[in-house]
Amino acid sequence: MNFTEVEFISTVEILGTFAFAVSGAIAAIRNRYDLFGILVLAFVTATGGGTIRDVLVGNMPVSWLTNNLAIGSALFGFVFTIALRSKIKKLQPWIFYFDAAGLGLFTVMGTEVGLEAGMGVGISITLGTITGCFGGVIRDVLSGIKPLIFRGEIYAMASVIGGLLYVTVLNMVEGEIWAQVVSILSIIVIRIIALRYKLRLPRVRNEM
Amino acid sequence: MNFTEVEFISTVEILGTFAFAVSGAIAAIRNRYDLFGILVLAFVTATGGGTIRDVLVGNMPVSWLTNNLAIGSALFGFVFTIALRSKIKKLQPWIFYFDAAGLGLFTVMGTEVGLEAGMGVGISITLGTITGCFGGVIRDVLSGIKPLIFRGEIYAMASVIGGLLYVTVLNMVEGEIWAQVVSILSIIVIRIIALRYKLRLPRVRNEM
Amino acid sequence: MNFTEVEFISTVEILGTFAFAVSGAIAAIRNRYDLFGILVLAFVTATGGGTIRDVLVGNMPVSWLTNNLAIGSALFGFVFTIALRSKIKKLQPWIFYFDAAGLGLFTVMGTEVGLEAGMGVGISITLGTITGCFGGVIRDVLSGIKPLIFRGEIYAMASVIGGLLYVTVLNMVEGEIWAQVVSILSIIVIRIIALRYKLRLPRVRNEM
Repeated sequence: MNFTEVEFISTVEILGTFAFAVSGAIAAIRNRYDLFGILVLAFVTATGGGTIRDVLVGNMPVSWLTNNLAIGSALFGFVFTIALRSKIKKLQPWIFYFDAAGLGLFTVMGTEVGLEAGMGVGISITLGTITGCFGGVIRDVLSGIKPLIFRGEIYAMASVIGGLLYVTVLNMVEGEIWAQVVSILSIIVIRIIALRYKLRLPRVRNEM
Repeated sequence: MNFTEVEFISTVEILGTFAFAVSGAIAAIRNRYDLFGILVLAFVTATGGGTIRDVLVGNMPVSWLTNNLAIGSALFGFVFTIALRSKIKKLQPWIFYFDAAGLGLFTVMGTEVGLEAGMGVGISITLGTITGCFGGVIRDVLSGIKPLIFRGEIYAMASVIGGLLYVTVLNMVEGEIWAQVVSILSIIVIRIIALRYKLRLPRVRNEM
Repeated sequence: MNFTEVEFISTVEILGTFAFAVSGAIAAIRNRYDLFGILVLAFVTATGGGTIRDVLVGNMPVSWLTNNLAIGSALFGFVFTIALRSKIKKLQPWIFYFDAAGLGLFTVMGTEVGLEAGMGVGISITLGTITGCFGGVIRDVLSGIKPLIFRGEIYAMASVIGGLLYVTVLNMVEGEIWAQVVSILSIIVIRIIALRYKLRLPRVRNEM
């Protein structure tokens, strides 16, 4: 990777981790959790997906333990949410874009970890989706609600499609930066379209 | 292991993983989860117990990541449940037997992993029970209900007894196939007897 | 470590693991769980924090699998709670002190694991807090309630302060026993003061 590429990835990672931490902190404040609870939910939302991926693959110590960029971004998301909580509604569009960028980057990073560990394409994309989505699942379990991503939101689906595009472009074009950019942008675009047109993933009619 | 033995184990693993995935998919449909939620619950129910066991022991990458038989069976359970959900009630007896066979096999496989890792007998049986039962615990947590196996069902108890029998027969008879068969059959029989006579594990009276 | 030191640590570990198991068993009985559910909740409360720490750091097999002292103490907590459940209210003060001692020791042990693995001071204290507090988080998730330590109790905060004191004293005085004693005692004292004066961690006003 050259300098610009590292900069690009780092910027996306900072914004994404920040947005994930904000969504955890918001969930904690809505639950009337104390300061410690807000801190924990900010952190597990930001780092939970990558942690599960690292544990499944055997990549230990898990990466966030030694990733000061991620720790700093999550801490900043925690402080930011508490300080500006009365203005969060106005900031929501920004947080939405950061979150979409984070979902994109985490999907790409997780898929890369799978491929580098010699996993098949399907499992690698699965690891990408776990990286992007399962922090939110832990957030919801610790908030006492049923996971949002199981209830119709086009979120995991965006991650899966982004993972597929990543692998496809990687096989067609030289240089992984193109695969990264296409995958992250496609995930952001899918999230925006789903929000704009209120698209939902179909639920299955309970005929049991 | 000779060919027949491999065949026997593989058949039981396919049926068991399938049945566990079906129970996860049913829980998700009852929760009105979307397609992605149904897929995740099918998978975590089928692979969760073995994943926890692998993580505790340090067996990474966890086994299902490279087990195409398990992945295929879980995927088939997911598709099957959605396609035939209006007929699931009629199929329930079959799913019950497959699930019992799965509980038996997973208990045996988990106990074997413990013994091979040099763990004591008690810990090995514990790992067997975790393998057989904790996928269902994750399923219930992600469904927002209190785990079924903590509420009186003779399920974990069947697994513990099967694990004890496995270790006992292994020490008495040569060839692990006998221990496997006795253990799996005993677990199936206990599950059938418990269902037939509506046996429940005692709850402790709350005198606090 | 000399003999007395080993004795001191072992005694605290036995009492602490016992108290954590009791709190898990009590939660299970309150939920009307069966015998197996009580056993599982006793165990995960006693060993859950250390398990998460070991998994994050990559210390496998996780330590309780080969720690007969911890297994025995947790089993004893399980049997004790069922046998004496009608007298638990009277015994509550003792259990409170044991639990505080356990929180202290587990915090120290977790912080040590982090430092020995070459982690920074902040991450090591985080690992200490995870070791002390996250068994209770799993207990609450498996009990279907929102984690108690996120709802104002001065529990995790005591653990964080104890971890800070541990690292501070370790850098100032030779021999880790002094750091251990100061840290554990400070955590016990903070817990007693918080109980006595009904101190609570501030919640953040939901202004969203």
